[in-house]
Amino acid sequence: MATGMTRHRVTRVRWNEGADGATTSTREDIVAREEPLEIRIDGTSWSVTMRTPGDDFDLVAGFLVSEGVIAARDELASLRYCAGFDEFGRREENTYNVIDAVLGRGAVPPTDAHARHSTTTSACGICGTTSIEAVSKQSRFEVADDGIRIDAGILARLPDVLRESQALFDRTGGVHAAGLFTAEGELLCLREDVGRHNAVDKIVGWAVREDRLPLSGTVLQVSGRASFELVQKARLAGIPVLAAVSAPSSLAVDLAAASGMTLVGFSRGASLAIYTCPERVLVPAVAGATAP
Amino acid sequence: MATGMTRHRVTRVRWNEGADGATTSTREDIVAREEPLEIRIDGTSWSVTMRTPGDDFDLVAGFLVSEGVIAARDELASLRYCAGFDEFGRREENTYNVIDAVLGRGAVPPTDAHARHSTTTSACGICGTTSIEAVSKQSRFEVADDGIRIDAGILARLPDVLRESQALFDRTGGVHAAGLFTAEGELLCLREDVGRHNAVDKIVGWAVREDRLPLSGTVLQVSGRASFELVQKARLAGIPVLAAVSAPSSLAVDLAAASGMTLVGFSRGASLAIYTCPERVLVPAVAGATAP
Repeated sequence: MATGMTRHRVTRVRWNEGADGATTSTREDIVAREEPLEIRIDGTSWSVTMRTPGDDFDLVAGFLVSEGVIAARDELASLRYCAGFDEFGRREENTYNVIDAVLGRGAVPPTDAHARHSTTTSACGICGTTSIEAVSKQSRFEVADDGIRIDAGILARLPDVLRESQALFDRTGGVHAAGLFTAEGELLCLREDVGRHNAVDKIVGWAVREDRLPLSGTVLQVSGRASFELVQKARLAGIPVLAAVSAPSSLAVDLAAASGMTLVGFSRGASLAIYTCPERVLVPAVAGATAP
Repeated sequence: MATGMTRHRVTRVRWNEGADGATTSTREDIVAREEPLEIRIDGTSWSVTMRTPGDDFDLVAGFLVSEGVIAARDELASLRYCAGFDEFGRREENTYNVIDAVLGRGAVPPTDAHARHSTTTSACGICGTTSIEAVSKQSRFEVADDGIRIDAGILARLPDVLRESQALFDRTGGVHAAGLFTAEGELLCLREDVGRHNAVDKIVGWAVREDRLPLSGTVLQVSGRASFELVQKARLAGIPVLAAVSAPSSLAVDLAAASGMTLVGFSRGASLAIYTCPERVLVPAVAGATAP
């Protein structure tokens, strides 16, 4: 298996045209790997980015170019993986998640005012761990025991509702959408943005301003993929079910599992894939009653 | 026209099956708006995010939840748009691009170690301007006069080449790709990542480590949308042509235009849309010679 992938157990629900009810199957599925990479410059922690492992030296070098730090090969003296420290301060083995870049002559070292790359993690102290404890924020809400159950047929229809509601709006083909629904499929709030994360922040912001946090009993449907950051945002708002039209990343699956959140991917009308906590999704045993 | 959209002049190239050559037309097209929003907490600049204007108070409130600063309505005392200052230090009108959040009791104000939201802009001093000068980084390379010309037919085939090369790799359905090509359509470098920006950083990093910067005479093809940040990354590497499978944002178009970069969107085999500097793209006048 290539470095960029990992395996997860997935429950697939599929509605076959004309068939009775829905088919459920459980199998191992391949998920794109997402892990934090800490970038240090001359030994000092500078940035943490979530990335797919592989070509890490290229990633760091390119990020240095994109941030205006270097513009030629000899402005980068060296790149090396370095070991982190464990919780007892002991030096760990090479973890492949910390890279130190030593700048050369002509480089423009980032100043303190320089913006950091990371959005949801603290750049210091991760020290190359891949554990989700290190990169996830503490949430004031528990999503684990909220008791919500959602019919698989309702869940499968949410992307269409999102698209139809969005169609009024998005004539550009370039806007992401997020929709907050009740377990009965009622749309509570729809928000759009060129940024996937912004669309979700707008939903959560609507909810906190309406004094609705934690968002127990709700489902968040997003138009794109499910990254670590989206799961994190849903978690901090207490949302128990996150459904994405496209694939989740490995760290999204890990964080959802650790949070007791139901994570659904590839939700495309005729089928969907449940990555974590499938017990919240009810699949009809009887002929077509709730098929989409 | 809704706040989330803006108009841009676009050159469309379309190959009709069985028809002679390609059809070119120029018209106004709708583009999703992207503008920087500066978020201040209790008067101090905290973060800059690129977003689609609209529901800005929701965006700020939700971002505060996502960053663990607030978790309930009364932890946010108020939100207001505030004026910036022009280049002479004079107070400007309300610009709608700076919001000040005043925290209430129970909020957890971000510490200095708290990661910033912004990746490519400096959080301080933007003061609500929408001008690209304020948010774009200075590049050491000019892309304007590099003399590259690319056949529209070659350009139209790049997404397929990218997908075919990626197919070896991406069995997860969740990975973005970026490919660097010569003007003749030869693939120089392909990189994948769960993050669109990382895939491009990996390309640029490969190039700088190969001592190939600036990347004059090349075309960067990306699998998703073209945001401001992707144009910025291409610009800092001196790439003259950026082509995306999906839509560009308004700020991406503006920065490409100001940089003299050719920006292509909706590149989907049978048609493509050229948003800036169309003179670099050659369209065959003669029957099907280079149709894809």
